[in-house]
Amino acid sequence: MDDKNKNNLIKMSLEGVRIEVPSQKPIILLKEEGGNRYLPIWIGAFEASAIAMEISDIKTPRPMTHDLMVNILEILDCKIKKIEITKIKDNTFYAIIRMENNNEEELEIDSRPSDAIALAVRCNCEIYAEEKVIKSAGLEIQSIEEEVDKFKDFLDNVYPEDFKKEE
Amino acid sequence: MDDKNKNNLIKMSLEGVRIEVPSQKPIILLKEEGGNRYLPIWIGAFEASAIAMEISDIKTPRPMTHDLMVNILEILDCKIKKIEITKIKDNTFYAIIRMENNNEEELEIDSRPSDAIALAVRCNCEIYAEEKVIKSAGLEIQSIEEEVDKFKDFLDNVYPEDFKKEE
Repeated sequence: MDDKNKNNLIKMSLEGVRIEVPSQKPIILLKEEGGNRYLPIWIGAFEASAIAMEISDIKTPRPMTHDLMVNILEILDCKIKKIEITKIKDNTFYAIIRMENNNEEELEIDSRPSDAIALAVRCNCEIYAEEKVIKSAGLEIQSIEEEVDKFKDFLDNVYPEDFKKEE
Repeated sequence: MDDKNKNNLIKMSLEGVRIEVPSQKPIILLKEEGGNRYLPIWIGAFEASAIAMEISDIKTPRPMTHDLMVNILEILDCKIKKIEITKIKDNTFYAIIRMENNNEEELEIDSRPSDAIALAVRCNCEIYAEEKVIKSAGLEIQSIEEEVDKFKDFLDNVYPEDFKKEE
């Protein structure tokens, strides 16, 4: 029995970020863990860079904006528990950052997916996406080994307008 | 009697941000309150945009990165009290964000000046700079009315290499 309001969160892994697609618009690619569905989200260049630098283990001499945010959370004894890509509305992706404060109270903050993922990779926390978001904006690839080149070709030839976008 | 280690904070106002100087590098301009000294700091385009959008009262449908940071501080009941431009080392400006947590404890966080100012304009908190920083990297203008055009010309023809820079 379908229940439109029921949460159905799918655990995702961050496959990567492409900074320079032909359109010059960067893309985050999330992949369903243990599955064959991908969720591409177009994001801003700055946020893409913030994600790419962290997953490439590039250190900067001074704290970048998302590093500062993580440092602030640490000094306030607040932990990010997980992030969730919750919905798409008017072609915009929405996310929630779930945190725990120093009194072990659970808090949630509305965020763009890009900021949420830039924080998630720094805090090594889990990334989820709502089933309905994946159904609406995901791509299914049956065999990764066979399809990977096809998928790369697709990424090289796709334009932001072809997708739901973040902002 | 000079004391090199003594803090001597000067209250500054944010004169503005120029996004597109000929060099394509944006600049923050701080001005000594009640004085005639200016402190220019070269910053990144993203951070400049974050400051300019706030002081121009431009609202975005989704929270931008520094808006998210302010939202997180609010939900954690943490207040930014003031920010301070504290030093220059190896041509890099350093800043501190001074905060108060929900137990009224004072906390400080190391930050780039650009992030600190992007937060300060959102929290309406005061901006200070160390006297030694202004002495080292400031510009003195005797009469603002007479000098303002000259100063604009200067800004139009100066290059980032001519200044201490943030990163």
